[in-house]
Amino acid sequence: MSPNAAQLLARRLDELALVTDEPARITRTFLSPAMHRANALVAGWMNEVGLKTRIDSVGNLIGRLEASSPRALAKPKTLLLGSHLDTVRDAGRFDGPLGVLLPIVALAELRRRGIALPFAVEVLGFSEEEGVRFSSAYLGSKGYSGQLRASDLKHRDAKNLSVREALATNAKPFALPKPAHRQSNLLGYIEVHIEQGPVLENEKLAVGVVSAIAGQTRGRLTFRGKAGHAGTTPMALRRDALAGAAELVLFAESLARKTPPLVATVGTLTVSPGAPNVIPGEVTLSLDVRHPRDAARRTALARLFAHAKKIASARQLTCDWQATQDNGAVACSAPLTALLAQSVRAVQSRSLALVSGAGHDAVVMSALTPVAMLFVRCRDGLSHHPDEFASPRDLDVALRVAVDFLERLAQQNPA
Amino acid sequence: MSPNAAQLLARRLDELALVTDEPARITRTFLSPAMHRANALVAGWMNEVGLKTRIDSVGNLIGRLEASSPRALAKPKTLLLGSHLDTVRDAGRFDGPLGVLLPIVALAELRRRGIALPFAVEVLGFSEEEGVRFSSAYLGSKGYSGQLRASDLKHRDAKNLSVREALATNAKPFALPKPAHRQSNLLGYIEVHIEQGPVLENEKLAVGVVSAIAGQTRGRLTFRGKAGHAGTTPMALRRDALAGAAELVLFAESLARKTPPLVATVGTLTVSPGAPNVIPGEVTLSLDVRHPRDAARRTALARLFAHAKKIASARQLTCDWQATQDNGAVACSAPLTALLAQSVRAVQSRSLALVSGAGHDAVVMSALTPVAMLFVRCRDGLSHHPDEFASPRDLDVALRVAVDFLERLAQQNPA
Repeated sequence: MSPNAAQLLARRLDELALVTDEPARITRTFLSPAMHRANALVAGWMNEVGLKTRIDSVGNLIGRLEASSPRALAKPKTLLLGSHLDTVRDAGRFDGPLGVLLPIVALAELRRRGIALPFAVEVLGFSEEEGVRFSSAYLGSKGYSGQLRASDLKHRDAKNLSVREALATNAKPFALPKPAHRQSNLLGYIEVHIEQGPVLENEKLAVGVVSAIAGQTRGRLTFRGKAGHAGTTPMALRRDALAGAAELVLFAESLARKTPPLVATVGTLTVSPGAPNVIPGEVTLSLDVRHPRDAARRTALARLFAHAKKIASARQLTCDWQATQDNGAVACSAPLTALLAQSVRAVQSRSLALVSGAGHDAVVMSALTPVAMLFVRCRDGLSHHPDEFASPRDLDVALRVAVDFLERLAQQNPA
Repeated sequence: MSPNAAQLLARRLDELALVTDEPARITRTFLSPAMHRANALVAGWMNEVGLKTRIDSVGNLIGRLEASSPRALAKPKTLLLGSHLDTVRDAGRFDGPLGVLLPIVALAELRRRGIALPFAVEVLGFSEEEGVRFSSAYLGSKGYSGQLRASDLKHRDAKNLSVREALATNAKPFALPKPAHRQSNLLGYIEVHIEQGPVLENEKLAVGVVSAIAGQTRGRLTFRGKAGHAGTTPMALRRDALAGAAELVLFAESLARKTPPLVATVGTLTVSPGAPNVIPGEVTLSLDVRHPRDAARRTALARLFAHAKKIASARQLTCDWQATQDNGAVACSAPLTALLAQSVRAVQSRSLALVSGAGHDAVVMSALTPVAMLFVRCRDGLSHHPDEFASPRDLDVALRVAVDFLERLAQQNPA
């Protein structure tokens, strides 16, 4: 491994971080001017390694390297490597770009070693994953994999422009794209991403292999009781919506603690009427429940709803649930993940299997082709924040794993 | 008594209820546009009865009627009658306005009867009692009575404007006002208010006389933990400020339930950062604790703070308390209350002495002059709610009591 490869990767992450729509912080949203400049910058790095680049109809940057030794009869398959180039507002430098820039440096390292791959490679820089501009996520990977639907095009941004309008060109209206590849032509999709959690740091490991991406249910729970005067309403006569909500917050925490790897989070809670001297008449809270097994997530939700009902009944409250999101869990490909784990073991002491609690482009790509993910340790588990950080040392480990993995995959798929 | 007087009062309460900052519900907060309109409306009614009106530097509406027969040598004393014109959010029509509008109708009735008072009267419509905008109550009566302190001006509203900034005019910065009167020039302060509790309804009485007002401590408790990704942070590694706050909400409820007549209320709670997929890093909640005995209230507060500390320690959170209000229990004036009880007995079957669980402007005014309060029965003991209701029949009783009281006081203070 070139001792400079990880430094090159870190420098490019820094350079890309300067490409932003907002001064003094990192913000790149779907189809924004900064995204066009980011695509141009990254395309240049792709071209240096011999990748042929293009932008597809949803703004994805695609760099393709043909197989070095195509067989006469069978068309060589394609391996997809990538992540997204858009960011949240006031983002860090790693979430997304790492999974696009690392494969480019890994391919450069292979070329330096004189290793030619018997399969084609496409490095993908998706145009949209974070859902910032249209409050609708995965527009890039959905477009690439042929999963965009007319309903996805209806969302509107802050300027009331729809996705469809944003994607139309002067020449012609936007047409829903077909998948970029037939499934049978693909070897899989590999995404390198910072962990965005504290597990690797806790385990003192630079990288880990993702076994599954957790399913996720999100929604709003509303407790309604009766507002009243905080000084004159005896405790026994109260129907306090906040006290009911507090019981549910603690039940959700306790249920998740007792049944790992379940995570349950109440991230927002609003009190109405919301005055210090008024007993809360209504409380709405968000509930976010994730588990790598769909059945376990459904069981947890059923227990949460049953308990909410019990709380409401005991306190003479009403309780309503409104789901806003419901994504099934995605299992990573067993053979790809096993191969990736071999590479991890070859580079660092041991390979830890992790569940991804966050969603990733790999969730969408799993409908097109088997997926695998490599997580890289990030400081304090922090992401979506300017202090997001993965050390050059850990980037070096991740690069070694990627190069080793490509070599192993090449051995499994001889020309 | 004019048979139309109570109807006029009820109609004016309805008319004032239409003056609001929020469509379809009653909300008037300190210095808001609706408060300016309310002051103008009520000032018109004051002017009809011959009161000279002005707005003081903290936004209080003051209507003054000079003594009809001033003595040559001694300056006539002034009787204060009033309550507040601001409301909680989504309020009823009576809490506050009743104590401002009833005296105006009572003075009209005296004029109709040709009775001239030997003392001056000021009808006070305080600009702030509920503490909604700045989570700090009694700004109006504190200003009128010269009790505003620099520390009161530091509180900030949801737009981060301080009390001081809100009170400054284009012409000049805000200066802390002196008391509107010397104590020796005052006869006392009388406040008519709905009971906001169930006692009078239980006793089948239209009105009652308040013997004392419960002490009250109000403030903000802030739990700080660490924000984090809701999907990727395992439960065991979380420092969730909302879960800690939820424990305190339930402890406060349980403590008050176990030790009546203590009441403890968490009426506001804000979560930061406040996104469904982010673990709460910081929660600020309001705490309102009341008891008719100051010692019992202090004991309860000590237990609440100790428990908050214990929660914070167990969860690796920090916890800070910021008091915004601390009022000892207030005894009403014995002679004024005795006189008021005489009037009550003259109008209805009997006079019942009540403790007020709610704070009132009378608490603050008691530092300036002796106070007395007349409570009016309200349906279901309900207040701070659109369904708040006092019947025209009970308003009639309260009006008769007020007129009788003014006549008796006139006899005690001959010109």
